[in-house]
Amino acid sequence: MSIRIGIMGYGNLGRGVECAVKQNPDMEVVAVFTRRDPKALSILTEGAEVCHVDEAEAWKDKIDVMILCGGSATDLPKQTPKYAKLFNVVDSFDTHAKIPEHFANVDKAAKESGKLGIISVGWDPGMFSLNRMYANAILPEGRDYTFWGKGVSQGHSDAIRRIEGVKNAKQYTIPVESALEAVRGGENPELTTRQKHLRECFVVLEEGADPARIENEIKTMPNYFADYDTTVHFISEEELLREHSGIPHGGFVIRSGKTGWNQENNNVIEYSLKLDSNPEFTACVIAAYARAAYKLSLEGQSGCRTVLDIAPAYLSAKSNDELRRELL
Amino acid sequence: MSIRIGIMGYGNLGRGVECAVKQNPDMEVVAVFTRRDPKALSILTEGAEVCHVDEAEAWKDKIDVMILCGGSATDLPKQTPKYAKLFNVVDSFDTHAKIPEHFANVDKAAKESGKLGIISVGWDPGMFSLNRMYANAILPEGRDYTFWGKGVSQGHSDAIRRIEGVKNAKQYTIPVESALEAVRGGENPELTTRQKHLRECFVVLEEGADPARIENEIKTMPNYFADYDTTVHFISEEELLREHSGIPHGGFVIRSGKTGWNQENNNVIEYSLKLDSNPEFTACVIAAYARAAYKLSLEGQSGCRTVLDIAPAYLSAKSNDELRRELL
Repeated sequence: MSIRIGIMGYGNLGRGVECAVKQNPDMEVVAVFTRRDPKALSILTEGAEVCHVDEAEAWKDKIDVMILCGGSATDLPKQTPKYAKLFNVVDSFDTHAKIPEHFANVDKAAKESGKLGIISVGWDPGMFSLNRMYANAILPEGRDYTFWGKGVSQGHSDAIRRIEGVKNAKQYTIPVESALEAVRGGENPELTTRQKHLRECFVVLEEGADPARIENEIKTMPNYFADYDTTVHFISEEELLREHSGIPHGGFVIRSGKTGWNQENNNVIEYSLKLDSNPEFTACVIAAYARAAYKLSLEGQSGCRTVLDIAPAYLSAKSNDELRRELL
Repeated sequence: MSIRIGIMGYGNLGRGVECAVKQNPDMEVVAVFTRRDPKALSILTEGAEVCHVDEAEAWKDKIDVMILCGGSATDLPKQTPKYAKLFNVVDSFDTHAKIPEHFANVDKAAKESGKLGIISVGWDPGMFSLNRMYANAILPEGRDYTFWGKGVSQGHSDAIRRIEGVKNAKQYTIPVESALEAVRGGENPELTTRQKHLRECFVVLEEGADPARIENEIKTMPNYFADYDTTVHFISEEELLREHSGIPHGGFVIRSGKTGWNQENNNVIEYSLKLDSNPEFTACVIAAYARAAYKLSLEGQSGCRTVLDIAPAYLSAKSNDELRRELL
């Protein structure tokens, strides 16, 4: 029997989870939960039901893992502890500074219910965290670098859209190639914010809006753009939709460290992602950890976990024997 | 109190382990075991003892983890099960095809003694296996590629040295850049052996030896060179010692896979290593897993494990709280 998956929230990430589950023959989506009118929502999976979030409790014994696809700002801090009382859960909570608090809340709820919760699953936090951790444990005398991109930053795109006179916008975060090369070369450079990433913006103006004023507002926006070299392109709405409607992303986690009695040798560990679809890839990571949540729960484990706490083999549909034979 | 490490065998890997332990403040090397005359062996760690292998049993309660630094062909198949009866052990057994058998032998011995053994630790098998496994679990619809190099292959260098008229030799395995680029570009190419790697040989001749015959013998050697584009350079012994005495290595594990309902998006996961010292880096991975063996053993676990079976947090000297706060 396959692992029965519920999806809570049907935005980009929820749809991504639906696609990811399709690729895993040992799992099936049995229900999608929405705050909208379920009749108005059409999903892709044949045979899966669309339900209102208020009906979730009735699925208590019909779902093995509930995947929470809401946002980290307001949805997940409430949803993950709430649903951990009913289900094994996986979320992609990504507010790095609040992870310890979120962990404690989910751990308490999941221990009380005897369920298993895995939080902060995706690629950062997620696979990038994992690679930072492995690389730090292996090369204690070294230095970490994380670069993001090239990819669309939703937060920065939204910030531009809030400027008066902007009709639509997309912002790309781009790692500075020369900084990447210096890090790969083992030079262990000190890099400022500006030296690590560029920001490139594609902006559609409202009729009559002043491009000079808007370009200046973008480039001087504190936190978002002021500390970066930022390029602004004004384009038509057609071009924006035609050329910039994807959600690519990616990045690099690099650790450069010394070995040898006198630290005479340098070694570089690099992990990188190049993703056509940020939410679909995040969803694929989540699907693999949903399998882990299911397996851990079958073993009788409960409480909260992160990617750092879970042995890799739990992610695979293959047996440990097969994994040793085929992948080791 | 720190984790007390024993090192069995003091070649390149054993010396690398000694250097790695020095970088980890929670560990110390307490003894090095050799088949040679202990008096003839000088080690780097102050306060550590040098002992004959026959004395190992007397260290049963004075060593927390014994690291086995012998070869995979004849040493480890016997040593790892043997010492798993006395100690928690870690080895770098790398004969991929024989891992299941070696696992079974170590598992049996370690379960009987209540000790914990971790086998096949290093970078391939080891970190490369881990990355193949994670990437396969995340992108089920995809394709794996492993490239090795640029680096020194000990086996291929030895094969050249066995040719009559060769005084000394070093062989580098080099990934073909255009193949790497095609894989990174998501083209999922079919690649032959020849299309993936080049072999570059630096050879010192015995006086009077015939370079043409030797070049031909190298290039046509079955398994080792015949299936590759091979370049042979004849150089002086001075140049070989000056320019080619390091043991660099590295490589790339890449998985390219599709996501989306109709597999419309491509995603590339890449893990790479660029190592000035192959044995020192392998030793660093082993040191981190020695910590894991110690922690697992403290929990009362026993039997054999591989890198696939061990949750990442076990590798770190930091607490799970710290890891969540700092690295997630």
